[in-house]
Amino acid sequence: MNNYEESLQLHKTLRGKITVRNKMDVRTNEDLSKVYSPGVAAPCEAIAADKNKVYDYTLKGNCVAIVTDGSAVLGLGNIGPEAAMPVMEGKAMLFKKFGDIDAFPICLNTQDTEEIIRTVKYLAPTFGGINLEDIAAPHCFEIERRLQDIGIPVFHDDQDGTAIVVLAGLINAAKLVGKSLFQLKVVVNGAGAAGTAITRLLRCQGFGDDKEACVSVKDVIACDSKGIVSKDRTDLNEEKIHLLEYTNTNNVSGTLQDALKGADVFIGVSKGNLLTADDIRLMAKDAIIFALANPTPEIMPDEAFKGGAAIVGTGRSDLPNQINNVLGFPGIFRGALDARAPRITPAMKLAAAHAIADHLRNPTREQIIPATLDPAVAHHVAEAVRAAAGI
Amino acid sequence: MNNYEESLQLHKTLRGKITVRNKMDVRTNEDLSKVYSPGVAAPCEAIAADKNKVYDYTLKGNCVAIVTDGSAVLGLGNIGPEAAMPVMEGKAMLFKKFGDIDAFPICLNTQDTEEIIRTVKYLAPTFGGINLEDIAAPHCFEIERRLQDIGIPVFHDDQDGTAIVVLAGLINAAKLVGKSLFQLKVVVNGAGAAGTAITRLLRCQGFGDDKEACVSVKDVIACDSKGIVSKDRTDLNEEKIHLLEYTNTNNVSGTLQDALKGADVFIGVSKGNLLTADDIRLMAKDAIIFALANPTPEIMPDEAFKGGAAIVGTGRSDLPNQINNVLGFPGIFRGALDARAPRITPAMKLAAAHAIADHLRNPTREQIIPATLDPAVAHHVAEAVRAAAGI
Repeated sequence: MNNYEESLQLHKTLRGKITVRNKMDVRTNEDLSKVYSPGVAAPCEAIAADKNKVYDYTLKGNCVAIVTDGSAVLGLGNIGPEAAMPVMEGKAMLFKKFGDIDAFPICLNTQDTEEIIRTVKYLAPTFGGINLEDIAAPHCFEIERRLQDIGIPVFHDDQDGTAIVVLAGLINAAKLVGKSLFQLKVVVNGAGAAGTAITRLLRCQGFGDDKEACVSVKDVIACDSKGIVSKDRTDLNEEKIHLLEYTNTNNVSGTLQDALKGADVFIGVSKGNLLTADDIRLMAKDAIIFALANPTPEIMPDEAFKGGAAIVGTGRSDLPNQINNVLGFPGIFRGALDARAPRITPAMKLAAAHAIADHLRNPTREQIIPATLDPAVAHHVAEAVRAAAGI
Repeated sequence: MNNYEESLQLHKTLRGKITVRNKMDVRTNEDLSKVYSPGVAAPCEAIAADKNKVYDYTLKGNCVAIVTDGSAVLGLGNIGPEAAMPVMEGKAMLFKKFGDIDAFPICLNTQDTEEIIRTVKYLAPTFGGINLEDIAAPHCFEIERRLQDIGIPVFHDDQDGTAIVVLAGLINAAKLVGKSLFQLKVVVNGAGAAGTAITRLLRCQGFGDDKEACVSVKDVIACDSKGIVSKDRTDLNEEKIHLLEYTNTNNVSGTLQDALKGADVFIGVSKGNLLTADDIRLMAKDAIIFALANPTPEIMPDEAFKGGAAIVGTGRSDLPNQINNVLGFPGIFRGALDARAPRITPAMKLAAAHAIADHLRNPTREQIIPATLDPAVAHHVAEAVRAAAGI
C-alpha cells in the first residue's frame, strides 16, 4: 500500500482521529452531584457573577476551535466543509500532541465572509482561541482582520503560521550565508493567503506601535500566476493592490524570472515544478530557496543547487529543511492561552519566529530549522510568545 | 465542605471536565504523513466525491454538539453562554460515559432565534447530531422545529428528553396502580419547554403518520404560574394558545388546585414547595406525583403520601424514583447515530420511553424507573431507538 491507501485505511479504522474523554469517572450519585446537577450551579453562578472566571472553571482556557469553510483545503481547493474534516482532525491532533491544547474541528456550511465572521463571534464563549484554517484568499483576509477584537486570539494558520515559520527559516538561512535580513531582496511567488502574509510579516505591515520589534526586509517583490504584482497591472484585486503599498518599491514589471534577477531569496507558495536551475542562476550569489508547494516543490533541491543555490527548504519531510507550520501554531496558541492574550500581536508573532530559529543551537545549511516533530520546540515558542504578550 | 463548595473546588482543579485526546500518537514522519499531510488528502478526496463518506472517515458519526444560548440554565435562568459552560461540559461527560459519544459544548453568544438557527445549520457538517440544551421557552420551540430538516438529528433535551423519561416513569406507574395510560387525567404544571413537550408527547402531537405507535393520554390540563391554561385567559403567548388545541378539552378554568380535582397524575416542572397534602387529597385515588422541580420538588414525597399519593417521583438522587434525563439522551443519540437517522422521530421517542420503562423487570412503587446511573439502560434504549429509526 502507498501512503494514500494507508491513510485511507487508517481513517476508516479510526473513524475519527480524536475523541472526547472525561477527566474523571461518573460512577456514583456523589460524582454526578459534583460534575453536574446540583453542584455544577456553583461554578455557573461564579461565572455569571464574573465572566472571566470561565477560565478558572471550564476548558475554555485550553480550548481552540479549528474553523474552516473548506474553501482552500491543502492543495485540493474548494472541497467543502465535510471533506475538510480529516484535515481539521489532523490539525487537532497536532495541537494536542505539541501544545497539549484541546482543539476541536468546526467545519462551517457557509463560505460567505459575513456569515463566517458572525458565526465565529457566536462561538467565542466556548473557546480560548480560534485557529482559522484552509480558508481561501481573498476572503480569509477580511475574516481574520475583522475578528481581531472579539477578545480571544484569532489566527489564520495558512497566513500567520506560515509567515512565522518562513521568517524563522529565513533568520537562520540569512545568518548562514552572511547576509543581513534587512538587506535581502526577496521574491515571494504566490499572492494568496500564505504569500500575502509572508510579505506583510517581512515588511512589518500591521505592526502599529510594535514596529521597533520588527525585522523589516528592504525589498520584497510579490508575484502571482501572471507575473510580478506591479502598478502596471490592471487585473489586480483589492488585496493585491494593497500589496503594492509595501512591495515592489522600484515598480518592476514582468515575469517571475524578471523578478528573480539579482534576488537573494525565493519563497514559493505556489505550484510545483515552476523553476529550473537556469532560473536560479538569475539570482544573486548564495541564493536562498524556500520552495514550499506541496507535495511537489517549485523546484527540487538538486536542481536548485545546480543553479547555485546555497540553501534550499521545502515543505517535504523526506528532504532537508522542512518548513512546516507544526513548528509554529501549537506553541503560539499555548503561549497565547497561557497569557490569556486577547489577540496574537505582531510582537508575539516575531517572538515565535525568533524562538523557532533560536531553538537550533548550531544551524547548518542542511538544518536551518528544527525538526518538524521535535516536541521541545513548542515549549520554547510558548514561553517566548507568553513573554511577548506582556500581560 | 458542602456539595456546592466541593463542586467549585473540583471545577477549579480540573479546569475543564472533558478533554480532547488523540486516538494514536504522532511521533514519526510516517505517522504525520498518514494522519495529516500528504496522506490525509485521500479521505478528503473520498468525501469530496461522496459527502456521505464523512461518516466513514471522520468522527462526525459519533459526535454531538451540545448547543446552548445560556438563556435557561438549570434553575439559574438566563445566565449567559459563559456561565452555561460547566453544565454543558457535565452533559458532555454523561454523553461519553453512558453513550460513548464524543460530545462537545457550543455556547453561543446570541439569544436571537434566527441567529441560533442559522448558526446550528452552519455547524452541521462537523456533527452527527445536535443536542439543544437550556434554551428558554418560547424561542426553544421554534428553534427546534425549524432545525428538523438539516439532515442530522436535532433534539432539545429539556423538551424531548424530559418528556421521554417522564413518559417512561408514567408507563410503569400507571401499571402499578392498575390504571390505563389512555384513561389518565393528567395535570402538567409548568408550561415552558419541559411542560409543553411532556404535554405534546402525552397527547401524541407532532406524530404525523406515526400516530398508531402513540399512547395517547385522554385528558391533559396544562397550568402555568397563573393557573389553568384555558380559553378564558387573555395573557397567553402563541405557544400556550397552541397548547389549547390538545389540552383542557373540557375548558376548565381556575387555579392549579381546581385542575387537581379528580386528577390521576400531577407532573410538576415548575417551582419548589407549591403543593401540600391537602392539595393531593383533591386528586383521585392512588394519585401519581412527579414533582420534578430542582433542587426542591413541588411537594416532598412524605407530604404527598400524607395526602394519599400512591407513587412519588422527583428529580432528586437522594429520594426514590429519580426522574432524570440521563436515562434518555445518551441512548437516544447512540441509537440515532448508529442508525444515521436524519432526525429523531416520534416513533423513536416512544421506543426510547418504552425501553426505559421495560428495562426494569419488576418495577415497584419505590422503583418505577431504572437507577439514573445504571450503565445498561443506554444500551437498551439505543437498540430500541435504532430499530425504531427503521433505516
